[in-house]
Amino acid sequence: MTTKKLRVGVLGATGTVGQRLIQLLENHPWFKVGAIAASDRSVGKTFQQACPWKISGPIPEYIRDQTLKSCKPNLAVDLVFSGLPSSIAGQVEIDFARAGYPVLSNSRNHRMEEDVPLLVPEINPSHLALIPIQKKRQGYSSGYIITNPNCSTMALVMALAPLHQRFGLEQVNVVTMQALSGAGYPGVASLDIIDNVLPYIDGEEEKIETEPLKILGEYQAGKVILANFKISAQCHRVNVQDGHLEAVSVSFRHCPPQHQLVEALSGFSSLPQERNLPSAPRFPIVYLEGTDRPQPRLDRHLEKGMATVIGRLRPCSIFDYKFDLLGHNTIRGAAGATLLNAELLWKKGMLQSPK
Amino acid sequence: MTTKKLRVGVLGATGTVGQRLIQLLENHPWFKVGAIAASDRSVGKTFQQACPWKISGPIPEYIRDQTLKSCKPNLAVDLVFSGLPSSIAGQVEIDFARAGYPVLSNSRNHRMEEDVPLLVPEINPSHLALIPIQKKRQGYSSGYIITNPNCSTMALVMALAPLHQRFGLEQVNVVTMQALSGAGYPGVASLDIIDNVLPYIDGEEEKIETEPLKILGEYQAGKVILANFKISAQCHRVNVQDGHLEAVSVSFRHCPPQHQLVEALSGFSSLPQERNLPSAPRFPIVYLEGTDRPQPRLDRHLEKGMATVIGRLRPCSIFDYKFDLLGHNTIRGAAGATLLNAELLWKKGMLQSPK
Amino acid sequence: MTTKKLRVGVLGATGTVGQRLIQLLENHPWFKVGAIAASDRSVGKTFQQACPWKISGPIPEYIRDQTLKSCKPNLAVDLVFSGLPSSIAGQVEIDFARAGYPVLSNSRNHRMEEDVPLLVPEINPSHLALIPIQKKRQGYSSGYIITNPNCSTMALVMALAPLHQRFGLEQVNVVTMQALSGAGYPGVASLDIIDNVLPYIDGEEEKIETEPLKILGEYQAGKVILANFKISAQCHRVNVQDGHLEAVSVSFRHCPPQHQLVEALSGFSSLPQERNLPSAPRFPIVYLEGTDRPQPRLDRHLEKGMATVIGRLRPCSIFDYKFDLLGHNTIRGAAGATLLNAELLWKKGMLQSPK
Amino acid sequence: MTTKKLRVGVLGATGTVGQRLIQLLENHPWFKVGAIAASDRSVGKTFQQACPWKISGPIPEYIRDQTLKSCKPNLAVDLVFSGLPSSIAGQVEIDFARAGYPVLSNSRNHRMEEDVPLLVPEINPSHLALIPIQKKRQGYSSGYIITNPNCSTMALVMALAPLHQRFGLEQVNVVTMQALSGAGYPGVASLDIIDNVLPYIDGEEEKIETEPLKILGEYQAGKVILANFKISAQCHRVNVQDGHLEAVSVSFRHCPPQHQLVEALSGFSSLPQERNLPSAPRFPIVYLEGTDRPQPRLDRHLEKGMATVIGRLRPCSIFDYKFDLLGHNTIRGAAGATLLNAELLWKKGMLQSPK
Repeated sequence: MTTKKLRVGVLGATGTVGQRLIQLLENHPWFKVGAIAASDRSVGKTFQQACPWKISGPIPEYIRDQTLKSCKPNLAVDLVFSGLPSSIAGQVEIDFARAGYPVLSNSRNHRMEEDVPLLVPEINPSHLALIPIQKKRQGYSSGYIITNPNCSTMALVMALAPLHQRFGLEQVNVVTMQALSGAGYPGVASLDIIDNVLPYIDGEEEKIETEPLKILGEYQAGKVILANFKISAQCHRVNVQDGHLEAVSVSFRHCPPQHQLVEALSGFSSLPQERNLPSAPRFPIVYLEGTDRPQPRLDRHLEKGMATVIGRLRPCSIFDYKFDLLGHNTIRGAAGATLLNAELLWKKGMLQSPK
Repeated sequence: MTTKKLRVGVLGATGTVGQRLIQLLENHPWFKVGAIAASDRSVGKTFQQACPWKISGPIPEYIRDQTLKSCKPNLAVDLVFSGLPSSIAGQVEIDFARAGYPVLSNSRNHRMEEDVPLLVPEINPSHLALIPIQKKRQGYSSGYIITNPNCSTMALVMALAPLHQRFGLEQVNVVTMQALSGAGYPGVASLDIIDNVLPYIDGEEEKIETEPLKILGEYQAGKVILANFKISAQCHRVNVQDGHLEAVSVSFRHCPPQHQLVEALSGFSSLPQERNLPSAPRFPIVYLEGTDRPQPRLDRHLEKGMATVIGRLRPCSIFDYKFDLLGHNTIRGAAGATLLNAELLWKKGMLQSPK
Repeated sequence: MTTKKLRVGVLGATGTVGQRLIQLLENHPWFKVGAIAASDRSVGKTFQQACPWKISGPIPEYIRDQTLKSCKPNLAVDLVFSGLPSSIAGQVEIDFARAGYPVLSNSRNHRMEEDVPLLVPEINPSHLALIPIQKKRQGYSSGYIITNPNCSTMALVMALAPLHQRFGLEQVNVVTMQALSGAGYPGVASLDIIDNVLPYIDGEEEKIETEPLKILGEYQAGKVILANFKISAQCHRVNVQDGHLEAVSVSFRHCPPQHQLVEALSGFSSLPQERNLPSAPRFPIVYLEGTDRPQPRLDRHLEKGMATVIGRLRPCSIFDYKFDLLGHNTIRGAAGATLLNAELLWKKGMLQSPK
Repeated sequence: MTTKKLRVGVLGATGTVGQRLIQLLENHPWFKVGAIAASDRSVGKTFQQACPWKISGPIPEYIRDQTLKSCKPNLAVDLVFSGLPSSIAGQVEIDFARAGYPVLSNSRNHRMEEDVPLLVPEINPSHLALIPIQKKRQGYSSGYIITNPNCSTMALVMALAPLHQRFGLEQVNVVTMQALSGAGYPGVASLDIIDNVLPYIDGEEEKIETEPLKILGEYQAGKVILANFKISAQCHRVNVQDGHLEAVSVSFRHCPPQHQLVEALSGFSSLPQERNLPSAPRFPIVYLEGTDRPQPRLDRHLEKGMATVIGRLRPCSIFDYKFDLLGHNTIRGAAGATLLNAELLWKKGMLQSPK
């Protein structure tokens, strides 16, 4: 059976996202790591030599002695996952797509391009219809690029999806309190965050204000029509390892009673759940009843880090309702999102089974 | 000269607010500590024995060996500062006022009572006109009660004051990231805040949503007409020692261009500055230009902790503008506010000079 | 099968140690929770209502709706685990033993009594010979008391055991940097530990300086002869959630070359490993080669928190060698130790199988 | 008067040590900043543009608009302070000395060279006799190099000095818990220290084990005879902003009773105190009586960060005594040490008064 697993190439394998991918791919039922690639200064080293492993527990044994390759499209793999920094991801991902590889990217570079799906399997699998268009337009043969959202977008858009689908969003205000791991490694200097909060994350507010509109947009006649509501974001970095917390306020076209909102959230279920994708959370949204939840340290691991956790939904004197939500930024907000996208592609027959 | 200083009684002297009062009253030009009082289990002990001093540096020498008294209105002082917990402040403060003491309270109990000024010297000194009404209604002779706002309200309302006065506020959305010292001592358990954010502070949102409307209200014919705009608050506790950070969004009746807003904020100056009150900040609002300011650890001490520090003012796609603000919660947000109120009273001749 | 599991009563079920016991007993192959008990103010509530659950992830479903009972020896269980605070553990544990229950205690009260085993299954199973003596002396019928060491002792003594057995210890100097969870909940106030280290833990140094001498002592003719070497301890609390780090220096009667020391440590294996006790770590000591290990956050979960992790062993200019060690204080240092003791008792036939 | 102040050149002005020097030199009675220099990428920028200022409060106004120069010995100053990284300090400092500048260095490069004083004004001013020897040997005219110790050495050696002078040290064991600022900026990554302790600091143990022996050595006939006792160090990084805490154990040739030890420590006073050097602490050692002191956050600012703070002195079962000590690593442990050295030189006439 193992021999039939699809071989994945992990680009940027030694980074924060790459490490999570390595962890999540251990014992995956459908995929196995076929190659790891990183920047030039790591090429030729073993994973163990090159990687500043920052996840609790040891480096998985299967990867320790694999050798890092260059991020060139000559890897013996069936698809690639990209956890590359945005400074280089843009061209490298195009090179791989052009060379025939399906590319599943966590980087921001191609997210907002009109022929690239910004895919969340629970929300917009219909956007995969962009793929043939992308191939044609870019002249790709078997390759293509699919992206997953920014970490703070991911947690947010999962909560917005059932609300928008059922009640029509008009306005979304969000103030984030984001974890350190979102900045990669070494990332935030300890002297900047001890006894402190940073009220700025470069480029983050723009991502949150635009990506959800594409994800919740409708595919029509060859393109995605952006959703038509307003988002305003204020982003902060707090002294938390993993788990982005977001204080959200929402207004609707048709304001529902509170219990309907909670039902829409906690009852949300979609394609990944129906198809039993291996990395899919049983519940993509977990609603907690406690007065002081969600909390990053206590709740980020719910559904193995693949859910958006929500609490404190209550009426707002300016918007219709307000609540707090939490998402694990390196699992559902990055590596887990990439992996779930790949699982959906496989189920849909969009990945080639290895011979 | 020293013999002419007014004698202050500090109620709740060993608590977080009390400690700051003790610190701020050291070498004060007009006031001196005449008595310290605390709960029964501390009565009879020296300050040093009873107080879990948590401010950097040693306990001021002048207070170390003073003996703690009971919170009964038989202290040989000219006025009292109350840093009592709200569970007991209500009645004790009434008892002192009835016994003839001016009471300057940091507790929430009497803040919203219609004959009690919720005083911020920069904003609403006119509300002191409530005092004769209060005295008459309550049957007080020389005593009365004046309150200062909640810590997170204080930082916010200072920013709102010039904006409301000049442009007319319509809506204010605020998400707070509040410091640990706001919860007193022992307060927040370390296991609750390490690697975490708490998305709830009991009673805090209600205070922020109501207190500014009274502070920014207008005194007319014997009462304060509440200001007429909406506030929505979402409160969080973060792993910071001192300094409440708040992400604020505002809409106006008459939306000004951005530079006018910044001018209104950074140019704000008022009665305490004109009268040179000893604890008054030179600038009650400090506007910082950096892209990533204000930050609690770096900016909370500006103007000796007596200013609201603002940064990142920018247009908002939902409200007119959004920005971040910071206030030192135990200085301007508590002890410093009480002290500045007393200084205003003294300048206005509302405190009796000791014979 | 399930019906044949031994029923465990957990005393102090809502505390830090109790919570870990609840977690570790979920799906245990031999034991199940038969009753939970706590202080009077929790009696009658469900576990979920009474417990400030502080472990990542939700409260295990099996325990949520169980009702808390009083800590009286009328529980329908086959043995009890005590995570009670030392202020009440002393008498309660005696009451249970007298009433016929085997008591496995994590509290300090009876540890140093001469007829009570201070049991570490890898080190001193021979000390179980004290049980018949204890029963006789105390007049217990089927009941008895067995204790496990203090959390910082536990991590240390595991490292000392193979060293003492093979090379004869003469002097042990240890400086601890202990985690917050060791102080229970609410425990350490956040204002005491943010940006800080506390150089004192009440009673801790005494425990570390005495308990290992009993654990490593020899059972002879009805009593345990204390081991004959010196220990000096200096204890500190640091801003870490779980995992006690200890800087250790050791001198031997027969100083071995360094490689023999590392071999003695990493090769250590004993009765729990031979007997495959369900909670036994495969390797009770894990030696890490990296220059900067062990680290609490990265290494505390090795062997599911049941091992002592050691690194940086090197010669010392005063002692023979020095190194750092790490132990998970609420798993191997508390709940896991209690549970492993129970597993050993069961294997040895010292627990009564339920009818 | 101002025109007669000596002009100081600060090398490495934008680094952690440089920032403290800038802060401490504001309003200094004898010195003023005459030039600031930094690495090539900062040259030509103003201090404000180039410096990631990390000290609470704003950048001192006097320095904001000064332009950074290259670290070349053509600065119009009377002496230079070096806070350069050790990777470049070695040669740059020689260049300045050769060009005639007195160089007061905080870097490790020249500390252990036999003709370079490793100066602590309270301890070894006699070592200044090395200066003429250095000048002659190196062929310097008016220039020379003087160094101050490593930050963790500084705090330790201040405590050891009176003990060694009066009772003769034999053995010193020290386990450090060092602050983040000791690693410079960006220094320690936040992901490495949140919920963690790092049991290794590169090169630190070697410094602590050797530098005190030189500092406490005796100048005899042209050289410093190293003190003859043993030091063993184990170094850790903890999640503290400023203030190195050290757990120390000591043995003496002539073991004194405990009260004599405390007297020797708290009564320690020396040349900087007698001469009233502006930066000298009134008490170079502060002994605190509390059971849980010193603590970094509460005690690092005692004596404006220029003292070693000691507590918990008690007998040890292996050594004679053990205690905890604390020193502010960027003040007395770095910038303040450099400055105090310069003040001593000025008093001793070893700096040229500007014409």
